[in-house]
Parts: sequence; C-alpha cells; structure tokens
Amino acid sequence: MFRTNTCGELRIADAGREVTLAGWVQRVRRMGGMTFVDLRDRYGITQVVFIDEENAELNAAANRLGREYVVQVVGKVAERTSKNPHLSTGDIEVIATTLNVLNPSEVPPFTIEDESDGGDDLRMRYRYLDLRRTPVRRNLELRHRMTMEVRRYLDSKGFLEIETPMLVGSTPEGARDFIVPSRMNPGQFYALPQSPQTLKQLLMVSGMDRYFQIVKCFRDEDLRADRQPEFTQIDCEMSFIEQDDIINLFEGMAKHLFKEIRGVELTEPFQRMPWADAMKYYGSDKPDLRFDMKFVELMDVLKGHGFSVFDNAAYIGGICAKGAATYTRKQLDQLTEFVKRPQIGAKGLVYARVGEDGTVKSSVDKFYDQATLQQMAAAMSAEPGDLILIISGDDAMKARKQLCELRLEMGRQLGLRDKNKFACLWVVDFPMFEWSDEEQRLMAMHHPFTHPKDEDIPMLDTDPAAVRADAYDMVINGIEVGGGSIRIHDSALQAKMFEILGFTPERAQEQFGFLMNAFKYGAPPHGGLAYGLDRWVSIFAGLDSIRDCIAFPKNNSGRDVMLDAPAPVEQKQLDELQLLIAPADKK
Amino acid sequence: MFRTNTCGELRIADAGREVTLAGWVQRVRRMGGMTFVDLRDRYGITQVVFIDEENAELNAAANRLGREYVVQVVGKVAERTSKNPHLSTGDIEVIATTLNVLNPSEVPPFTIEDESDGGDDLRMRYRYLDLRRTPVRRNLELRHRMTMEVRRYLDSKGFLEIETPMLVGSTPEGARDFIVPSRMNPGQFYALPQSPQTLKQLLMVSGMDRYFQIVKCFRDEDLRADRQPEFTQIDCEMSFIEQDDIINLFEGMAKHLFKEIRGVELTEPFQRMPWADAMKYYGSDKPDLRFDMKFVELMDVLKGHGFSVFDNAAYIGGICAKGAATYTRKQLDQLTEFVKRPQIGAKGLVYARVGEDGTVKSSVDKFYDQATLQQMAAAMSAEPGDLILIISGDDAMKARKQLCELRLEMGRQLGLRDKNKFACLWVVDFPMFEWSDEEQRLMAMHHPFTHPKDEDIPMLDTDPAAVRADAYDMVINGIEVGGGSIRIHDSALQAKMFEILGFTPERAQEQFGFLMNAFKYGAPPHGGLAYGLDRWVSIFAGLDSIRDCIAFPKNNSGRDVMLDAPAPVEQKQLDELQLLIAPADKK
Repeated sequence: MFRTNTCGELRIADAGREVTLAGWVQRVRRMGGMTFVDLRDRYGITQVVFIDEENAELNAAANRLGREYVVQVVGKVAERTSKNPHLSTGDIEVIATTLNVLNPSEVPPFTIEDESDGGDDLRMRYRYLDLRRTPVRRNLELRHRMTMEVRRYLDSKGFLEIETPMLVGSTPEGARDFIVPSRMNPGQFYALPQSPQTLKQLLMVSGMDRYFQIVKCFRDEDLRADRQPEFTQIDCEMSFIEQDDIINLFEGMAKHLFKEIRGVELTEPFQRMPWADAMKYYGSDKPDLRFDMKFVELMDVLKGHGFSVFDNAAYIGGICAKGAATYTRKQLDQLTEFVKRPQIGAKGLVYARVGEDGTVKSSVDKFYDQATLQQMAAAMSAEPGDLILIISGDDAMKARKQLCELRLEMGRQLGLRDKNKFACLWVVDFPMFEWSDEEQRLMAMHHPFTHPKDEDIPMLDTDPAAVRADAYDMVINGIEVGGGSIRIHDSALQAKMFEILGFTPERAQEQFGFLMNAFKYGAPPHGGLAYGLDRWVSIFAGLDSIRDCIAFPKNNSGRDVMLDAPAPVEQKQLDELQLLIAPADKK
Repeated sequence: MFRTNTCGELRIADAGREVTLAGWVQRVRRMGGMTFVDLRDRYGITQVVFIDEENAELNAAANRLGREYVVQVVGKVAERTSKNPHLSTGDIEVIATTLNVLNPSEVPPFTIEDESDGGDDLRMRYRYLDLRRTPVRRNLELRHRMTMEVRRYLDSKGFLEIETPMLVGSTPEGARDFIVPSRMNPGQFYALPQSPQTLKQLLMVSGMDRYFQIVKCFRDEDLRADRQPEFTQIDCEMSFIEQDDIINLFEGMAKHLFKEIRGVELTEPFQRMPWADAMKYYGSDKPDLRFDMKFVELMDVLKGHGFSVFDNAAYIGGICAKGAATYTRKQLDQLTEFVKRPQIGAKGLVYARVGEDGTVKSSVDKFYDQATLQQMAAAMSAEPGDLILIISGDDAMKARKQLCELRLEMGRQLGLRDKNKFACLWVVDFPMFEWSDEEQRLMAMHHPFTHPKDEDIPMLDTDPAAVRADAYDMVINGIEVGGGSIRIHDSALQAKMFEILGFTPERAQEQFGFLMNAFKYGAPPHGGLAYGLDRWVSIFAGLDSIRDCIAFPKNNSGRDVMLDAPAPVEQKQLDELQLLIAPADKK
C-alpha cells in the first residue's frame, strides 16, 4: 500500500498520528515560509503543509510540484489553526516530513475543478481527466449505488440475475440492429440485442419465475441529443402474475431507491393514469406531474363565435398559468414564436389575461364577448392574475402535443420543474397498435409480444386500432424511466398478433419461430418491464443529459473521441470475415 | 397473482389452509380412486391429490393432464399419510378443489428430469426446456448467488462498479476481435472488447481508485471444448497498491465466496508458488494441488548407465504414484499409449514398481542395477507398493508438460481429484515475455501493460527473455480462475515495452496512444486482476464444462442452435453499412 489513509478520512481525533497519503496535487499555495498543498483522491482533499524552517529542501521540492502530479506524502496530523468548515478533513492538516513524486503530470488541457474551463469536446477527448472532477465522479458513484440497491432489492424478492447472450440473431422488426460478422460462418451475422425481450420470455418458459438483469442493449439509430448507441437496461420478468403484481412490486422498488439513494420518502401510491387521460389532459404519454396546469377542452365554449380558426378546429384546448397575467406582450410574443417553431408546429397561440378585477382580456376579444370569456375562465378555473393560453388545430392529437410543449415551457418559466421534487406515476392502458404512415400498416406500440386487454380481444378482428394493451410505463418528472407489459403466452394469440402486424406466417416463423415453438411446451402467464438505467441515474443526479452518468459516452455521431472508435480495420480482418467495403458511390 | 404459495414452501404447519398453487405437471399417477399430480415450479415440487369420490369430474380432468402442462390448483393442505423425506414439502399434500389449465403442452422432446434422456444437441435446441431441469437451474441459481456475493464483497471494500463501453476500437495485438460495422461512419468498425483492460487502466488514471465490473468479453477464436465466443469476467483494478495488497484482498474474496457459496472454510493462506517452481515440480503454470505427486528430476541418478534414451535426454523426471505398484502390465501399457498420443507427444514411458520387500523392478532393468534403482526410489521417496513413472525428452519444457499430463491422469485414476475438495494457490513471478515461433519475436506473456519486476528492469536491455513480471494467477484445482498484474504507469517504460514487443513508435501510438497520452497526466501506481466467472461457477458447481453454467451457450461452431444465430441478414442491412460479402473463392 502506498498510503495508510485516504485523503478523505483524517479527523481531529487523528491529530498526532504519523500517516502516509497518496493522491493528486489539486493546488499549491506558498504563504510566507510555508507551502500548502491540497492533496486529492476519490475520497476527499487533505491539506499538506511543508515548512521551510523545518526542512528547506523538502519545502523547495513541494514548490516544484505541478497541478495533477501524483505524490506520496508522509507526515504528522495536526489540528489546523484556521479550520475549513467546507471540507470534511477541514479540522486538520498534515505536516509533511517526506515527499515522493510517484508520477509527474503535464499541465492538463482544462482545469480539474467542479466548474471546469474545458469545452465539451475537449473534456470528452480527455475523459479520463474529466472523470477526476468531483461532480462527474459523483454521478458514477451514484450509478454504482443505484445498481447495488436494485440488485439487493430484487434479490430479496427472489429474482435471479441471469445473463443472456450478446451475440444473438438479427430481427429487422423494430429499430435497426448492430450486426457482427461471423468468421466461422461466413456470410452470416450475429446481432447485438436491442433488448433481451424474447430471451427473458424464454426464461419464463423455462420456469425461472423471476428474472432480472442489468444489461447493455444496442440500437443503431440516428442519435438525438439524449440517445446512446449502447445503453443499459434494468430488465425484469415475472411469471404467474397480473399487471397489478408487477406494478406493485416495481413501485416498491422505486420507493426503495428514492429512499436509499435520494433520501426521499414517497408514501402515497403512485397515480395510475390511463393513456387516454394522459393524452387528453397533458398531451403526452409521459406527463410531468410536478405541476398541475391540466388541459381544458374549450370546444363547447369557443366554437361558433365567428373566429374561423376556432370554428374550423378539430380541437381547442387551453392551460391556465397561475399568476402569469403579468406576462408582457414581448413574453407572449416569444411564447407564440416558441409554439410556431417547426419542431412544435402550432399555427399560433391565443391568450387571455384575467385581470385583478376578474375581467378577461384576450388576444381575440373582437370575436368574443365578456360573458363568453368569463365562461371560458370558469371552465379553466382561472382566477384573477392568471394567464390562459389556448392552442387549436385540425388534428386533435397534434394540437395536444403542441399544447404539451407549451405547458412544459410554462412550467419551466414559472419554476415549477424543480429537480429536487419528484412526481411519479404509471401510465396504463396503452393502445395495442399505432398506425404507421411510413409503413402504411399497424405497428405494435410496445412490441409484438404485448398482451391485449382480455376484454378488448374480440376487437382484434373488428377494430384492432381500438384495442388496448396490458402495457404500462413508469414516468418520473415527465420522463419515461421504464415500461413493460403482460406478454402473450399463447402461441395461437401470438400468431394472430403477427398476422395483424402484417407478418406472413412464414416470416413470423422465420423470425420468431423459436419463441412460438417454446410457447407450445407450457408457457406460464408472464410479464415484466425494463428501466432505462442511464435515464434513471440522470434524474437522480439532476442531470439534463444521460451522458454525464456514463463513464465513456459516445458523441452524436456514435464516436468515442477518446478511443477514436470506430476506425478502419486491417485488410486481414476483413478478408477473414469475407467482407468487402462497397465503394461509396454504390451506396 | 396466480398463486398464494410456491410449490416449495408448504409445510406441516400449513395443514388445513386453503392455498392456490401454479406450476408445471411433473408427473401424473393414478392409484385406485385417486390421481396424484406432482406440481413443479422453480422452488420445488408439491403433491396435489384429486379424489374421484369427492369430485369425479375434477379427477377426470386431472387424468387428462399431460407432462409439462401449466396448471393452477386450488385446494386444502393436508398431512400426508405416507411422507416423503426426500422432498422439502414431503410432509403434506394439497387436496384439490379446483383445477385450471393455464396452458397445455405438447409432449416435450426429452424428459424433464434430473437425468434427462435428451442428447446434447436436442437439449441445446430446446434449451428453454433443458433449463427446467433442476441440476441446470441450480447452476444458474449458483451463478446468481456468486455474482451477488462478489458485488457485496467488493462494494464493502470500496470498489465501484463502473460500466465500460462494449463498442470500442479494434486492437489486432492479442486474440482476434469481433468487429461491428458502423453505419454512421461507413468503412469504419467498432470492436467488441476482449477485456476492459485499457479502459480500467484509464479509470485508474481518472482517480476511481477501486473499480470492478462483471462484464461480457468477446474473443473470435477457434473454439475448443471449453471456450465460448462471449464470456464473463469479474474485472478489477486498484490504485496505490502493490502486488501483495491485491493478492491479499482477492484471496479474502475467494475465501469469502468459498464460505458463503460452498460452506468451505479455507483458513490457511493460499500458497504462493513462483512460476519457475510450478513448471519444475508440476510441469504446469496451473498445478492441481489436490494431490502431491511432485516431479523429481532424475538426471543425476539415471544418466550414464548405457540406456541411450536417458543418456541423450535433456530432461529425465518422474512421479511416484502411491500404492499403484499393483498396476497390471495392461494398465501400464495403456498409460504408455496415453502419453504417446499426439496431443501429449511423449516418446515412451519408463516405469518401476517398488515391491513389498523394497526391491525395485523397472521396465529398464537391463541397464540399471538394483543399487541405482534404490537410489532412484530414495530420490523419489518411494515406498513399498508405489509405482514410479518416468518421462524423458530433448526439450525439458516439453517433457515436463508431458509428465504433467501423466500426473493429472494418475491423479484421476487414483481418485485424487475430488470435486468437493479445493486446493487454491497463487502462481507468481511469471516471465514477462515468451518467444513466439510463429511470429518470430517476443510476445507479452500476460499483456503489454504488465509491469516487470523492479529488480529485473535492467535486464530489459540485456536479456529480456529472463525478465520476470509482477504478474499472478489464482489457480483452483488445476484451473486458472483468474490472473492479473501490476501495470506500468510510466509512459517511458510503456514505450520501451512496446519497442521490445516489436511495435514501431507509430504503431504503438496509433493503437495505444490514448493510454500513453493518459499516462502523461499523472497516472497512479495501479494493478488488478480478472476472474473468469464462467469457469469459477463451473468449479463451484462441480461441472466439467463451463457450458452448463451459461443460460444460453453457443456450440463449438459459435452457433446458438436455439436462436439459429448467426444467420444471413437482409440486403438492406448490408447496403446501409456499405458492405459486400466476398464470393467464397476470393477468401
């Protein structure tokens, strides 16, 4: 061992002890005949003092130390004269008697401080230095504690962690697979799993009863800001259960994590909101319930008054922003610009302020008399000082999504989206299918293995688009952290589902034959869910992006700029795989 | 919930309770007016009784049940008249009042019993049925408990589990990589990691201090019996430590696992055997110390007596098999055939029996007088009734390896390799390099990041082949379960190592530049090790192959016969990746 203690553990009770510390030089300050070195390791910072009067040579050596040098120091723990209450070791310092430079350091390309001067690119290129920064390190520590707690909890509930293979078969249904050429089977490819979905269902067929796995999954998608080509799931499956059993168990796990990791006691049961309500009242299947501002439909009140935009609309809905009547014209114009951005796509925004005297002044006053406006304010439970914001459109679903964006923006502007407040709910009763304009067919909203609600099964033949599924998502603060479903365990129903999804029996057999075969040998009723670990950690860490809770993330082009991967490989490797790279123009 | 209890938990104290069970039909027996159904789940088997006299219809339904049907049963717990002491639920049975078939089953292709009638291929194709068998399921339960204990132990020692990426860069040094084409970077490839070696070293540079990860690794090698293209490592790294610190900590972990998982208390420190001794006395860097039978070199005793085979040998060595003088001529001939097999390659075998009266009779008596044979017996501490087996050769190392195979075979034949006995040791002081005939250069015996022993560093210039490394393997029962080393943390020494290994500075920079750069910014002294989880579980489970402790293993051609992977992919997928498959003759 190069040390007797870490840089985070010495206290006043240690005064007088001779200790050896090792770590990185955070800072060197010279004051009078003394040199103060802040020595840092994962556990903390300890002040080391070199006294010129006692050992001039040693003091001179300390003065030559640069930032991020790795050193070993022997010395005696002493009580500080001026204590530092911000530091857990702030009551003591170590009076050095020996200094040993274990490794010098070049000047790092950015400051290793809580707030670094390094830009995103530079920090990613030198990620190993970025990880030395306390806030980044804390995210990884949090991630470790979360996975430990998840494992402890699920183990205590009888779940077995079972590893499923990483080299599986490609299933073109769903997102795009990463594929892996097989040298021993030329012309053939493995795929990296998008999730262990079918494998965990096979584990239920095998009687494993309760399975989980914290596991890497892969999707070759065009990356948006908050997506990674490889991501980590907490993947779970149970047998002989119904939807309530799963929701109760994993709600228990969520509460356990909130308590153990964040110290937050959530005593109330999580709200369970049908998908249809979530869309109706929040325009989203993952509503942020940290604040209210529910949608109110205003078709009855506002239609037929000669305002053609509303008169022709398939949807008119509004939100009431408490106390925001003070918004200036400029602020309201900015909100209008916000909803008209192409990413949101609203045609415009109608607003109305409720004055202190209760009168309503709107942007469309020429079409509406005060009585109608009062009726509207009443419908919205608006009070003096409130601001009403209204969106309409030809397509109700699209208009709701626009109103959702506006609601979230207003929540942000009014400070209602506090990162230290947590609002959890289950969204349930998802539709089984959604129509794909691109594919011109029904697609599975969750996946093709999702069980329809028993009472809706007859509609599979008559009105499949209306069928609801035994599917559920867990939402925290407007972010979907996990989701799952009861699965089909009957091979006939599974075959019917593939048929509705446009699979020929041959193609269904080719791609999912192993699963449908397995169902012939006694599949138990089962279901499960999967959490996105990266996302959940980022919520607990109060981060806006998942990237900073991943040790070595990739950028938006799927590159690891530190490792410089991907990269060309040697010709020999391609030859062994019998692969050729197509000329770019043959794309 | 489809059940109030599992099939493994009802006891005599539950008698009189109404319960609901769910599970698989293991067996149906009809006796008189009663039908007995053994109902099975992961937790056990419970006997369910249907009584014709009480409910003829129900009894008839029970009689229609087939093997592996999934059923739900409601009934009353009753004390059995004839108890089954082999079953944890053997004191009770459940008198059924309701039977609900949740899913029928076709007749499974092999019996779901501890000893199945299914061959290996069939069981792998229907692995989800094979996993229903208790011995296979127990292996996965053992694996789960082992990983839980490893995580608990390392967490308690301050280790953080940190996920490293699966999509990394290819490094042609070492084994062959699996590569993954990048769609967003056409013509470029990721590689799947052979181990997180360089990444965990970067985590040490980043100050994480104590890292571990239970992680999938990948090697595209021609598969031998006990290799899988994907395998799982317990990967660990520590900073500010020396070799002894690592060995002590992980010996502690091993003892903890032996105690918690196998109930075996290992109180003595593990032996630490220099590599040179392991080769000298056991002809192996992973000696099986469950039995003694050490090699004795007999050059001094047996050379120069006119037996040309020995007179011309570079090595003559023997083992003494206690009590095996009773071996017949036929058995000895079989041993001779054994060592002459091409996989072992010895030219022949000389043997000598020590008679009850102490006289020695050898197969080369015409060259040796009794005095010399007595001298030999004394050198080998042979006693009356022992069998001496001698191998010689031109190449000492090769002859030792042949003698090693013979020793292991004799251990097996004499019943000295008990699966419930555990002999653990550390092999230390490995050579830094080994000569590769194929590459005609020195290769790193562990890997290029291994630290040479400080006292041997001067020999890097003068006699690199003699340099020893700070490397160590943990061996249990003749199997290497883990290994590691102190790493180089100095970029100049690392550059020298690459030079000795025949890298040009450009190639070293290209392949490992990120690591050598990192070392310029204050790398701490560090080291670590990695365990092969599959192997360790298989030792604890008493298995001969790692395959049965893996849920979904691949066969020797790297195929998953259940999923039928790898397989051809759609042309669209190749087009998107700008890849072509080369005609077979262009290989």
